Amino acid sequence: MKIDSVDLFYLRMPEVLDIGDGSQDSLLCRVTSNGHVGWGEAVCSPMVGITSWITPMSHSGCHPVIDSVLGQRLDSPEDIRQVYRNVRQNSFYGLLQSDLLISGIEIALWDCLGRAKEEPIWKLLGYNKTERKLPYASVLFGDTAAETKQKAVDMRSKGFKAIKFGWGPFGLTTVEDDAAHIHAAREGIGADGYLMIDAGTVFKDDVEAAANRLPALAEANVYWYEEPFDGYALAEYGALAKRSSKVKLAGGEGAHNAFQAEQLIDYGGVGFIQIDTGYVGGIGNAYRVAQYATSKGVKYVNHTFTSQSALSSSLQPFAGLKESNITEYPMEPKALCQELTVNRIDVGSDGMIEAPDAPGTGITINTAAVKKYLVEAEIKVKGKTLYSTPTV
Amino acid sequence: MKIDSVDLFYLRMPEVLDIGDGSQDSLLCRVTSNGHVGWGEAVCSPMVGITSWITPMSHSGCHPVIDSVLGQRLDSPEDIRQVYRNVRQNSFYGLLQSDLLISGIEIALWDCLGRAKEEPIWKLLGYNKTERKLPYASVLFGDTAAETKQKAVDMRSKGFKAIKFGWGPFGLTTVEDDAAHIHAAREGIGADGYLMIDAGTVFKDDVEAAANRLPALAEANVYWYEEPFDGYALAEYGALAKRSSKVKLAGGEGAHNAFQAEQLIDYGGVGFIQIDTGYVGGIGNAYRVAQYATSKGVKYVNHTFTSQSALSSSLQPFAGLKESNITEYPMEPKALCQELTVNRIDVGSDGMIEAPDAPGTGITINTAAVKKYLVEAEIKVKGKTLYSTPTV
Repeated sequence: MKIDSVDLFYLRMPEVLDIGDGSQDSLLCRVTSNGHVGWGEAVCSPMVGITSWITPMSHSGCHPVIDSVLGQRLDSPEDIRQVYRNVRQNSFYGLLQSDLLISGIEIALWDCLGRAKEEPIWKLLGYNKTERKLPYASVLFGDTAAETKQKAVDMRSKGFKAIKFGWGPFGLTTVEDDAAHIHAAREGIGADGYLMIDAGTVFKDDVEAAANRLPALAEANVYWYEEPFDGYALAEYGALAKRSSKVKLAGGEGAHNAFQAEQLIDYGGVGFIQIDTGYVGGIGNAYRVAQYATSKGVKYVNHTFTSQSALSSSLQPFAGLKESNITEYPMEPKALCQELTVNRIDVGSDGMIEAPDAPGTGITINTAAVKKYLVEAEIKVKGKTLYSTPTV
Repeated sequence: MKIDSVDLFYLRMPEVLDIGDGSQDSLLCRVTSNGHVGWGEAVCSPMVGITSWITPMSHSGCHPVIDSVLGQRLDSPEDIRQVYRNVRQNSFYGLLQSDLLISGIEIALWDCLGRAKEEPIWKLLGYNKTERKLPYASVLFGDTAAETKQKAVDMRSKGFKAIKFGWGPFGLTTVEDDAAHIHAAREGIGADGYLMIDAGTVFKDDVEAAANRLPALAEANVYWYEEPFDGYALAEYGALAKRSSKVKLAGGEGAHNAFQAEQLIDYGGVGFIQIDTGYVGGIGNAYRVAQYATSKGVKYVNHTFTSQSALSSSLQPFAGLKESNITEYPMEPKALCQELTVNRIDVGSDGMIEAPDAPGTGITINTAAVKKYLVEAEIKVKGKTLYSTPTV
């Protein structure tokens, strides 16, 4: 088979709010090959991703992504890896955004190949079976410690054994205030629940400020301490990891290639590596990171905040890894992401989820929703239309 | 002063060839503030950079760059640093290309501020004087060792005491062939010239293949061994550096923030850090890297392949550093870059160059050339024009 077509769709909620919710728009990628269709989503400013697809060449190291994808072979996982290498080779200088766009296209290639071969992606990756994983609920800290406790109680009563608190006031006031929130969260969850804290990069590169929160995190038996710093701040991660004997660090959602994720493990000393398949270069890179993490005794966790399609593609890379047993689950995405798929990965009566045992991602895109949220766009250079919204 | 306007111009040669020459197009940024004008160039796929400027917001961490720049204060270097921090804060997730776009805009802000204060940028950065630096000529290896030798002889006869050979067949055939080219280059230059070798990332992440070339490099007294690997491959740089006692590694042109450049020093063990001001986030980041490098005994070198305007902005960050005494000089850029400026930084009778002692970059943009090479472009979303080519 050859890659016959790639279509990029910009989907958007009628109103996009200035809040930390990445489910308000989507760059949806559709691939066709020999009559088979695959879908993938890039975690990417949609218009910037679309421009990366068709922008005129600048030089031999700055080709539009289309040059490395269209017409290439699609008969095996190795063909997909070759497409990824093509993009890195042909767009490595001056086109950083290509890392994000190819993530969505690469997922669509795996989905298409899986449907053609009637195999789930995790089987194409070499796993024999899927492992059931514990989904965690992700919520914002309350404005007060009492509110935080109530949120924990509510989530626990909904059946979640693992809850992550993040953002809100954390890191912005005093060490004592943060400690009060952490202890309140633990009280609300109960002693046997998994409690995770997400600092949302609030400390930038301030190791002391991040370290001041360690005693409370250790006392509350917090499972991981996520993103204290800018994702690029390896030395700061490493310094904090050395000072935190009990609570392990987590990070990696900002890794846009496998090198960066592996460096967070090697130099940053994280105990959990959090990868967004739609950001890191796709399923092939995510799988590579999952294997590397396992070899280093680090747990792999998906980063997923949007649709059920994105959830399935994010489960594939570590579907068969028993040690990496916890998973992010999109709790309350916006209507766009809720409606985008015909089927879902539901939480079972045991409170667990797993990757579907069905061809490709096992998730069917709802084309009515694609039409409903589709944004018309056009890019013209020298009077020639390089992009216009394709037909669903 | 406030930042009153920012205009982005896509300039392009009539024909762009599929060769490793980054001077074939340009994303030129113009800033105005209180009647003063500044210019800067981003090393960036122009249309992708332009889209990053005006793309609709995706969420609070994925704003278009315009939101962090327009209307901000511009009275001091600290104001420019704040604009950069704004962009990192507001566009950190899903908009990788913002790192490149802000590089060009940031340079234009320094140029504008310097012209308003009638000071060269290097003075605003805190340097008291500029140091004269040795420009090196950058050429491709010949197809045969004899051709390589002849190129070296020719460059030396043109007055260049420092010559860098790169790309071409290097790393693609045998260790013996590469050794023949290296020795031929040294013969052509003579024993007293500086000889640098640029592997152009040919070895990706293959440490053995890169290390096999070390004996010839050491025998030929090569000054630096540049970019053996992908710029993200820190561990591979570090492993090779440990095996190379005589020849120091060089790299960094792909660093799109200061963290990455510092990590090439800390983990990659480079002896020379090569920074493109139009890629690393602008002059502020480049200055930070230059100071850090100096504190670690590493020499800072600019990466500049395009215009004289880009050359001046790339000299500013290390203008006053005596230890970092060698500089890349664009040898034969395409006509666009040749014509883009009214004045130039010429090589003196002593064979040296230095940053101009004049307000801003000290280089005047030739608006006739901007008009000549300007590409008309338009970006429309939901029927609304978000970008159309501005008036020069």
